[in-house]
Amino acid sequence: MATIFLNASQVVTAAGPGRARRGHEMQALEIRTDTAVAVDGDRIVAVGPPDVVRAAHSTGEVVDCGGRVLMPGLVDSHTHGIFGKPRHEEQELRAAGVGYMEIARRGGGIHSSVRDLRARSEDDLFELALPRLRRLAAHGTTTVEVKSGYGLTPDDEIKSLRVIRRLQQTLPLRLVPTFLGAHEIPLEYRTAPHSREEYIALIIEEMLPRVAAEGLATFADIFCEPGVYTTFEARRILGAARTHGLQLKLHADELETAGAAELAAELGATSADHLAAISEGGIKALAGSTTVATLLPGTMLFLGRPKQAPARALLDAGAAIALASDFNPGTSPTVNFPLVLTLGISQLRLSASEAILAATVNGAAALGLAGETGQIAPGYSADLALFDIADVRELPYWYGDQRCHATWVRGVPAYGAGNAS
Amino acid sequence: MATIFLNASQVVTAAGPGRARRGHEMQALEIRTDTAVAVDGDRIVAVGPPDVVRAAHSTGEVVDCGGRVLMPGLVDSHTHGIFGKPRHEEQELRAAGVGYMEIARRGGGIHSSVRDLRARSEDDLFELALPRLRRLAAHGTTTVEVKSGYGLTPDDEIKSLRVIRRLQQTLPLRLVPTFLGAHEIPLEYRTAPHSREEYIALIIEEMLPRVAAEGLATFADIFCEPGVYTTFEARRILGAARTHGLQLKLHADELETAGAAELAAELGATSADHLAAISEGGIKALAGSTTVATLLPGTMLFLGRPKQAPARALLDAGAAIALASDFNPGTSPTVNFPLVLTLGISQLRLSASEAILAATVNGAAALGLAGETGQIAPGYSADLALFDIADVRELPYWYGDQRCHATWVRGVPAYGAGNAS
Repeated sequence: MATIFLNASQVVTAAGPGRARRGHEMQALEIRTDTAVAVDGDRIVAVGPPDVVRAAHSTGEVVDCGGRVLMPGLVDSHTHGIFGKPRHEEQELRAAGVGYMEIARRGGGIHSSVRDLRARSEDDLFELALPRLRRLAAHGTTTVEVKSGYGLTPDDEIKSLRVIRRLQQTLPLRLVPTFLGAHEIPLEYRTAPHSREEYIALIIEEMLPRVAAEGLATFADIFCEPGVYTTFEARRILGAARTHGLQLKLHADELETAGAAELAAELGATSADHLAAISEGGIKALAGSTTVATLLPGTMLFLGRPKQAPARALLDAGAAIALASDFNPGTSPTVNFPLVLTLGISQLRLSASEAILAATVNGAAALGLAGETGQIAPGYSADLALFDIADVRELPYWYGDQRCHATWVRGVPAYGAGNAS
Repeated sequence: MATIFLNASQVVTAAGPGRARRGHEMQALEIRTDTAVAVDGDRIVAVGPPDVVRAAHSTGEVVDCGGRVLMPGLVDSHTHGIFGKPRHEEQELRAAGVGYMEIARRGGGIHSSVRDLRARSEDDLFELALPRLRRLAAHGTTTVEVKSGYGLTPDDEIKSLRVIRRLQQTLPLRLVPTFLGAHEIPLEYRTAPHSREEYIALIIEEMLPRVAAEGLATFADIFCEPGVYTTFEARRILGAARTHGLQLKLHADELETAGAAELAAELGATSADHLAAISEGGIKALAGSTTVATLLPGTMLFLGRPKQAPARALLDAGAAIALASDFNPGTSPTVNFPLVLTLGISQLRLSASEAILAATVNGAAALGLAGETGQIAPGYSADLALFDIADVRELPYWYGDQRCHATWVRGVPAYGAGNAS
């Protein structure tokens, strides 16, 4: 039996081809009025005039949207959602002018989360992650990519990915798991008798085969940045990941230019993420590739860094861009994806249409899901968000507020009225 | 009968003298653990060890804080909360590089809100403001300054202030009304046969006497900025306001340096607000005065402007600073005051203690209420906020989230469990 969504002030369909929008294609966001949506099981089956949709699904249950905006659930394609304690101390240190390296020397940074996560059980991590992902859902997100990467041992990386699997079985959200064993070189491999080479071998020879054997990840990712992994190492690790059937992502050119965007394009990575320090060559490479440029303006805001990724240059060159939250304990502890849309406009100079497509259609494309979610169109998964606004442009406008009224994932209530999860 | 608040992970008292904190005094935020708070009627009557407080108030009702953080309700000392339609079109125009003057030429900016507000009834404005102020409350704010200033005729300014009075009678919030007839020179006074001089006379001779006679405002404010009101005009208008018993505020040195901070100090204004373009002399003047420097970092973020007010220079000089949301339809449509604290840290380089004191004790001081609200101390109004965090530093850390669990104003539930307003 179908469910019919009636009485939305706007139905933002974001309809179009089932692939990333690029360049000027980002300007045309389909917004319909006087439109109903029918869902049958986990699929959207009709989008059209209310009379027509009701006539075709006369036995359906009705959801009264109450003059709110119905749109595709937001697709957050970059989070580090599995972690232990928050790291608010570093926020103050940064504000006081203490640099990244000094924070790391004092035991902070990624290594702090690694130490913490290793000491926790899978159960403990699951209990911590559950309310955090529910908070993401409470702001309108229906699909969330979640990375490992605070374990950095075979067992701790597997532990993190198993937490994601349990979350998939528990929460009515679409979760996409990513293996990020190459998030850092762990401290114990930085001094003799161990070496970074040894850790890279551990990723390639032990972690990737185990992750693949258990089917725990869709993507492999790497922090390709001067001081972390070189492009040479990234090529090796991602090459090995591909032989195990994993799709590819890169943390690319976040703080310093290193040719990581070019590498992402060359490897046919699904996305290259961050890009605040991308070069002209990198922009051209992404524009000429199928790799989605995923921009994370919340991170630069939280870090107090003035330089954001060159979103307009990327669009002008013809690249596809996505927006994501980068939810993580060190550099972007936000669950409010609509706030990231605001930053897309005020900091990256996107239009509202571009920002919304970057968080729906292109977020889905950054996860290889452009034919599955991110649009309200027949055949798509019924991943919907209902916002308490009259015009979708109010979503990035009322910045910092929580306007999400309800969400549905695969046709099932995920947040708000009717859901008790 | 008393109410006793038990089982908070932290009680952030912010206790200290009943005046603005300045300079290095902002570094010491009192945070207590294993502490209970007793409220009798509208007053805090005890803060101390749970056993002692319970023994002294053994018949009291108990509020179980459930391991959350109890702190003074946030004091938002600068909002333009009475307006009609949202102005999201301008957000996109700005992102596309359209300047302030061009937006005004196209009918946008303050004049757009003026046109809109004049066409609305008092009832309509009341119905629009009510949910907006409730949203402010939902993020932990218990005291809100609200300005008129989109009317710019005697009747429309009075209409706006009457809406604030009705909101005071309806909502369990502490609202502080400010008359801002000098928000702009209305368009009809910019061409012959009318003149700006005529409008200023209207403020002084008609608006101020009516506002005072009806007792509709505590403060008078003015937008003192090149292109809007000169410091000479501000001196005249605020001088007249003072003769009517109003306390003074200034929108000062927001976009261009004009000596407005110096004027605020000279006039003994309660606060000088914005200050992104304050001069060295202005900083010295505020440091040597009782005027609170109220900083609005959300506005600069939303406008996409790189330059923030020099918070550290103000503190180093010994000034008192407050943080506020600047909630308004054009340049800062946020109701999320904790997000403004985040910006205080990441953009203004405050510590968490400084940011929290700026939003409590010094927010109260910016409204002349430093002896009444903003602290959890015996004798203070029972204006409390309970946040779903374990450490108060998480409040600015989980940026963009909605962590407020409940608030009380004058001892009465205002938001969250137990309140149905």
